[in-house]
Amino acid sequence: MKIFTIGGYSEIGKNMTAVQSADDVTLFDCGLHLPPIVELEERNGFLNENQLRRIQAVPDDLILDSLDLRRKVSSILIGHAHLDHVGAVPYLAGRYNAEVVGTPFTLAVLKTLIEDENVKFNNKLKEIQPNSSYTLKNTTSSNVEFINITHSTLQCSLMALHTREGVVLYANDFKFDNSPQLGKKPNYEAIKRLGKEGVKALIVESLYATEERKTPSEKIARGLLEDVMLTTENTNSAIIVTTFSSHIARLKSIVDFGKKLNRKIVFLGRSLSKYVSAAINTNLCPFKKDIYLASYRHQVESIFKKINKDRDSYLVVCTGHQGEPGSILDRIARNETPLQLNPKDHVIFSSKTIPSEINIANKKQLEKRLKSKGVRIFNDVHVSGHAGREDLRDFIEMVNPEHIIPAHGDLQKLSALAELCTELGYKIGKTCHISQDLQKIAI
Amino acid sequence: MKIFTIGGYSEIGKNMTAVQSADDVTLFDCGLHLPPIVELEERNGFLNENQLRRIQAVPDDLILDSLDLRRKVSSILIGHAHLDHVGAVPYLAGRYNAEVVGTPFTLAVLKTLIEDENVKFNNKLKEIQPNSSYTLKNTTSSNVEFINITHSTLQCSLMALHTREGVVLYANDFKFDNSPQLGKKPNYEAIKRLGKEGVKALIVESLYATEERKTPSEKIARGLLEDVMLTTENTNSAIIVTTFSSHIARLKSIVDFGKKLNRKIVFLGRSLSKYVSAAINTNLCPFKKDIYLASYRHQVESIFKKINKDRDSYLVVCTGHQGEPGSILDRIARNETPLQLNPKDHVIFSSKTIPSEINIANKKQLEKRLKSKGVRIFNDVHVSGHAGREDLRDFIEMVNPEHIIPAHGDLQKLSALAELCTELGYKIGKTCHISQDLQKIAI
Amino acid sequence: MKIFTIGGYSEIGKNMTAVQSADDVTLFDCGLHLPPIVELEERNGFLNENQLRRIQAVPDDLILDSLDLRRKVSSILIGHAHLDHVGAVPYLAGRYNAEVVGTPFTLAVLKTLIEDENVKFNNKLKEIQPNSSYTLKNTTSSNVEFINITHSTLQCSLMALHTREGVVLYANDFKFDNSPQLGKKPNYEAIKRLGKEGVKALIVESLYATEERKTPSEKIARGLLEDVMLTTENTNSAIIVTTFSSHIARLKSIVDFGKKLNRKIVFLGRSLSKYVSAAINTNLCPFKKDIYLASYRHQVESIFKKINKDRDSYLVVCTGHQGEPGSILDRIARNETPLQLNPKDHVIFSSKTIPSEINIANKKQLEKRLKSKGVRIFNDVHVSGHAGREDLRDFIEMVNPEHIIPAHGDLQKLSALAELCTELGYKIGKTCHISQDLQKIAI
Amino acid sequence: MKIFTIGGYSEIGKNMTAVQSADDVTLFDCGLHLPPIVELEERNGFLNENQLRRIQAVPDDLILDSLDLRRKVSSILIGHAHLDHVGAVPYLAGRYNAEVVGTPFTLAVLKTLIEDENVKFNNKLKEIQPNSSYTLKNTTSSNVEFINITHSTLQCSLMALHTREGVVLYANDFKFDNSPQLGKKPNYEAIKRLGKEGVKALIVESLYATEERKTPSEKIARGLLEDVMLTTENTNSAIIVTTFSSHIARLKSIVDFGKKLNRKIVFLGRSLSKYVSAAINTNLCPFKKDIYLASYRHQVESIFKKINKDRDSYLVVCTGHQGEPGSILDRIARNETPLQLNPKDHVIFSSKTIPSEINIANKKQLEKRLKSKGVRIFNDVHVSGHAGREDLRDFIEMVNPEHIIPAHGDLQKLSALAELCTELGYKIGKTCHISQDLQKIAI
Repeated sequence: MKIFTIGGYSEIGKNMTAVQSADDVTLFDCGLHLPPIVELEERNGFLNENQLRRIQAVPDDLILDSLDLRRKVSSILIGHAHLDHVGAVPYLAGRYNAEVVGTPFTLAVLKTLIEDENVKFNNKLKEIQPNSSYTLKNTTSSNVEFINITHSTLQCSLMALHTREGVVLYANDFKFDNSPQLGKKPNYEAIKRLGKEGVKALIVESLYATEERKTPSEKIARGLLEDVMLTTENTNSAIIVTTFSSHIARLKSIVDFGKKLNRKIVFLGRSLSKYVSAAINTNLCPFKKDIYLASYRHQVESIFKKINKDRDSYLVVCTGHQGEPGSILDRIARNETPLQLNPKDHVIFSSKTIPSEINIANKKQLEKRLKSKGVRIFNDVHVSGHAGREDLRDFIEMVNPEHIIPAHGDLQKLSALAELCTELGYKIGKTCHISQDLQKIAI
Repeated sequence: MKIFTIGGYSEIGKNMTAVQSADDVTLFDCGLHLPPIVELEERNGFLNENQLRRIQAVPDDLILDSLDLRRKVSSILIGHAHLDHVGAVPYLAGRYNAEVVGTPFTLAVLKTLIEDENVKFNNKLKEIQPNSSYTLKNTTSSNVEFINITHSTLQCSLMALHTREGVVLYANDFKFDNSPQLGKKPNYEAIKRLGKEGVKALIVESLYATEERKTPSEKIARGLLEDVMLTTENTNSAIIVTTFSSHIARLKSIVDFGKKLNRKIVFLGRSLSKYVSAAINTNLCPFKKDIYLASYRHQVESIFKKINKDRDSYLVVCTGHQGEPGSILDRIARNETPLQLNPKDHVIFSSKTIPSEINIANKKQLEKRLKSKGVRIFNDVHVSGHAGREDLRDFIEMVNPEHIIPAHGDLQKLSALAELCTELGYKIGKTCHISQDLQKIAI
Repeated sequence: MKIFTIGGYSEIGKNMTAVQSADDVTLFDCGLHLPPIVELEERNGFLNENQLRRIQAVPDDLILDSLDLRRKVSSILIGHAHLDHVGAVPYLAGRYNAEVVGTPFTLAVLKTLIEDENVKFNNKLKEIQPNSSYTLKNTTSSNVEFINITHSTLQCSLMALHTREGVVLYANDFKFDNSPQLGKKPNYEAIKRLGKEGVKALIVESLYATEERKTPSEKIARGLLEDVMLTTENTNSAIIVTTFSSHIARLKSIVDFGKKLNRKIVFLGRSLSKYVSAAINTNLCPFKKDIYLASYRHQVESIFKKINKDRDSYLVVCTGHQGEPGSILDRIARNETPLQLNPKDHVIFSSKTIPSEINIANKKQLEKRLKSKGVRIFNDVHVSGHAGREDLRDFIEMVNPEHIIPAHGDLQKLSALAELCTELGYKIGKTCHISQDLQKIAI
Repeated sequence: MKIFTIGGYSEIGKNMTAVQSADDVTLFDCGLHLPPIVELEERNGFLNENQLRRIQAVPDDLILDSLDLRRKVSSILIGHAHLDHVGAVPYLAGRYNAEVVGTPFTLAVLKTLIEDENVKFNNKLKEIQPNSSYTLKNTTSSNVEFINITHSTLQCSLMALHTREGVVLYANDFKFDNSPQLGKKPNYEAIKRLGKEGVKALIVESLYATEERKTPSEKIARGLLEDVMLTTENTNSAIIVTTFSSHIARLKSIVDFGKKLNRKIVFLGRSLSKYVSAAINTNLCPFKKDIYLASYRHQVESIFKKINKDRDSYLVVCTGHQGEPGSILDRIARNETPLQLNPKDHVIFSSKTIPSEINIANKKQLEKRLKSKGVRIFNDVHVSGHAGREDLRDFIEMVNPEHIIPAHGDLQKLSALAELCTELGYKIGKTCHISQDLQKIAI
């Protein structure tokens, strides 16, 4: 069996891994690397495939051509709906005679991306329910299980590829949340069953391998939000909450507390609209009747005029938690909308700044602008969606794979997980494989 | 009115502030500065008053002698039972012809300290219930209100000293916790009433003035503990939890989950014994029937022998969260007890390392020793007991004092709070007073 | 005597302090706060006075109008040629019936700024040689000494204002460099003489008060440059050096080593052109015959075409050490010039990233772009121009002032210097005055 | 060829690597891991071999027994005199029927270690001059070149092992210093010659692979010292300098400036005595006539009494730069010597705190003690002895090896160098080998 680490092994983003067993090649994920896009779009607007390749924002899958493997790819398996996992599909899938396989929510999001980019897209989309299996087309005998797992969006899956040469388990991204606020708990039974049957290789995220902890449950984020939204002095203030647009469970908590505050709840921003619509379209949005969802510029302007006159009647949920230029919150802070913020208005970041320099700088500038208006800022009302070191340890012990391939990180992140693997008895270079983008691991 | 910043204005610890109004002098708090004691005790064992003065571990209250104010002190008001607020009373109170005034739990802890140190102690102790007032002895007309507040131990109080020259509100330490897991909520009514009546000076902690947040409730810590204790794989493992010994609410959560695990719960360590006994003696310990409390060395040895044979029947709660040399956890890690830790045993730090160099080094060495045994470590299962920037803002706006004196920090901490005060309209040097130990502020 | 802290006491930048003695008001410095300009100019191009006021990039000197002091200002004294000290003069000086007083180099730079901004400018400019005195016009009796000091540009001065109420010594910015590579050593005699005669107030920078060191001499920076430029493998490589444009001594070292490498030396960028021209015009540029200085876009394009064909014959000195968008180095990295960088080309940063978020992000993006071309990066080939804690201590002991006013920093920086002052016996609020922008200190 | 990574690949310290070619096994280095020793010796005094093994302070060379390779070891090659390279020889060499080979200075230091530990030592010591070769005893045909290199002690060598299966170049530790203040420059000719002849494997330090720079020359450290010692106000002050005891070039600069100050120069401390004596015994100490060297406790006490009465006549050079408990400087700070420090006395750290937690804590406590006496502290008067990223790049390009094995670091450090290797075209797992202690690399 050969595993090709195409993207996401030299950076955090643009995840793509290819598995070759016999003559079948299967791709896991096909994502974007966002920082170079954020940097460029400030200057240039949207990008096409060639531009994305030039700034290295998509996986460099041309390597499959040079190895004469491209034509053998029959399936592209997508684990969840985040852009660093699904975002490059509209640009790259056309290069393959392959089905794109994912859960309903993941594919619903993919469809909005395809529409947005206005690209021609002919690949077949194959919907798989969480916790079910599918026999891959045009392969000698491979099939894949989508195993329900918790993360920070809906219908996330671990994907177990069963081949004649053994099972590859792909585990980007996940946490073990036993009190998810929306959706099912992790399917521990399936994980343990795989562990008993035998797993040849585990490809697993390394993002928080250094954090000596179990990642807290989403119920903790709900508790933090409850305190900030319901027990600080905000009677006459505007309240703006910003969070990850794809995080439907978090949005549900925000809506719940907004209702307790007796405020009208408005969702503003393209990206929120995209993910919430996908949730509505797949019948996974529990709050669709409780919100007003505005996406077009004129809708946003019009609602802002109302809010400005009646600020204590609304709860604004909007984009901009990373200080992205052009996001709703950034535009508010720059006085580019009709909403004038006053001293003591609240801005709640139900998020964490993702630590790339561009984000840190954008966020700081956003904060400076908000503070110059006297706005109150509540940071880090959030818990992570990624497994901590002790979750990873529990997971590896359950799966007990022959080989581990740390993924989803640069060399420093991969090494940190490798260190944990050595604690558990794996040997670097033998059974634990530190790689980089565009390498081949033969096992 | 004159305020003397005796201790806790050039460091974090040894809090003491004196207020002179007319001919009356009242002291707030009388605490220890712990880091130099931790450093020295590694070498020398216990210390007497002169030694404590030499290493600057007690407030330098000799300044009151030189100002001829010592004999005018008639009351020493203690806000809560932490050592940096009450710990120097056994050594210094004898210098004053003064009552020591505090809530029942605070005084119960003080009594254990007095016994421990084996000092002669003749001052009168005056118990005040939370949310009640008391007319100070031998003063022209001063009285003090003890206002119930939440923090990380029991029966904490804001203290409002009413003098002929106005009210001084002393607010070291506090958080605004609307879901405390033990004891009452903050008495917001009393705080707002004072704000309306007028407060001349507010002395208030600056520890987390830089943190742009509302400090999470203790219910969040309970939720974190629940996940770690009830949903990680620990069936055959020893489980050791360590936390702040004075944090009775936290201990209650630990006991609750220990009971769910059907384990016998043992509390080990002198400092735990001291605080839990004080809680029991004041009828404030809800779990006294659920635990076995061992303090003497032979009790500890004997219980460890049992645990070693039957590790999955016990939950150990012990001292050592800061890696203190000689604490129970430190002794376990150094193989100085009969309990041999195995791979996969759990050590849960329901605490945060207090960031002094000695603590960081001690904690790291402790972790290294634990890891060399293969033990699993869960860090930061904790929330703070100190107000964040947005709590401080809410508080200051409620109190609306004429003058603010940032306290409980070195110059960097005090300045951070002063910065918030300037946002709220105060002027440094005029209405917001940055001070240092041993200065006088006349207002 | 009253001292008004107009700018540079709540941020690092836009320095301005007013001193009122009897009926005379004198201004020290009149600088810009650059970060908000850098942030805005990415979007909007150049700014006028009103825009600068709105983004708080100039000192808020309107306070002098409201105190009816504006018409009493007769002199604006400028300590040196950096933009945070002189940069607001073109915009604000016209509001005063006042002379602008500075050394020849400082005024030469000011003239280029005035030309650039194309503003009407009618104030009289008065040149003062380093180490000489001047009787201020229209004052009852004030005179000012310009005392030669070392810093990171030419002809920097401490300024001692002699009034009937005593001497105010203004010391922003300086270091004690006993081996400056250009210009004279610090005038210690004058400083000590003032100390003996008595100084009422010292206004002094606090930037590096936390650094426990003596700031290294410029000879050290020369040594670092020598190693990097003369002893790394660069025979066939392009060599690009970027440094602070105003740092003529540093530029001299770079030119000296460029000559040893037998390369043609070209200086590229508007800001370099501005400062080097000012040095040439005042006969202070020792390397004017050794360089080709290009400022206009077509000159730059044309020289880049030559360099691209013959890269090992040139040494490029250019703007862009902070990753400023639009600087020469930024444009090279974005492929916006005819110079194509190759693997192993050298880029030497004889500078340090000034730690504002926008700079850090800009610099990181610049590095990423350079690295994606395989360019070799040499960072921090630099020493600071600001006094460390032990220089400040020596300085304060020499001057022995009655009052100290920490300047040139936000509250955290000012507090750090105040801490040093308390070590030296000063009392905060009494003889050491922590202030903020727009406050009055009466002494 | 097989390479065994015995020590120094999972931590910084206890370096040992074994190379097997045909039936010959050669060891490179045999060093100590100091942090666990520092931690333990605070409690227990000196340690024997078994204790050292238990705390993992020596390389775990028992693996060679289990592979039946111990009896095949005929040579132990030592690169330089630092304890993490030579310090375990007295404990472990006896296990091998092998010569210990090194330069005269390295072996002179080894002899003092052997004496100190009072162990029986029967291995033959073989002296090799820098820049010469030696045919290893009892091997089929191996010979080794000792190539002169610069680092922070005397007579350091790269070691090139020529075997029938190719050359292994061992490069722990080095910098490229073209202005060493003592000893010869790096032998670039030999390195380049090896590069041309072909190197099969390069084992090279990774300590500063993240630092984007060329490490500054020792001449820079000399310049920094000159400024601090000769241009700060120290006429009536005691001056104490502390630095790495093995750094004879640095000590020479200190002595030179001490002579300029017309002070008597005294060297105090066991470790200084050890290294300086070794330098004297090998005729490599240029300042032996300029100093008084005290090692025994009574000598130290007696000289301190003199210094205390006549502090401005002496320059004290002593141990304690890492705040080591029991070092001379630590004892001074604890008032355990007759020397009473006064305000304004100078303590110069010509060193950097090596970033382990125990060192950081020790150093901070030392500083606190010194500051409480009013002593002036000068930190970081130092340059590193280890190659930066751009030196490593130059080195790898000169050597152009088939395989690279990053060494001298934990996984994070090794990975950082591996990242540089990928920039230069190496493939992780193929030609660049990230390892851990106790692994085998077959090439």
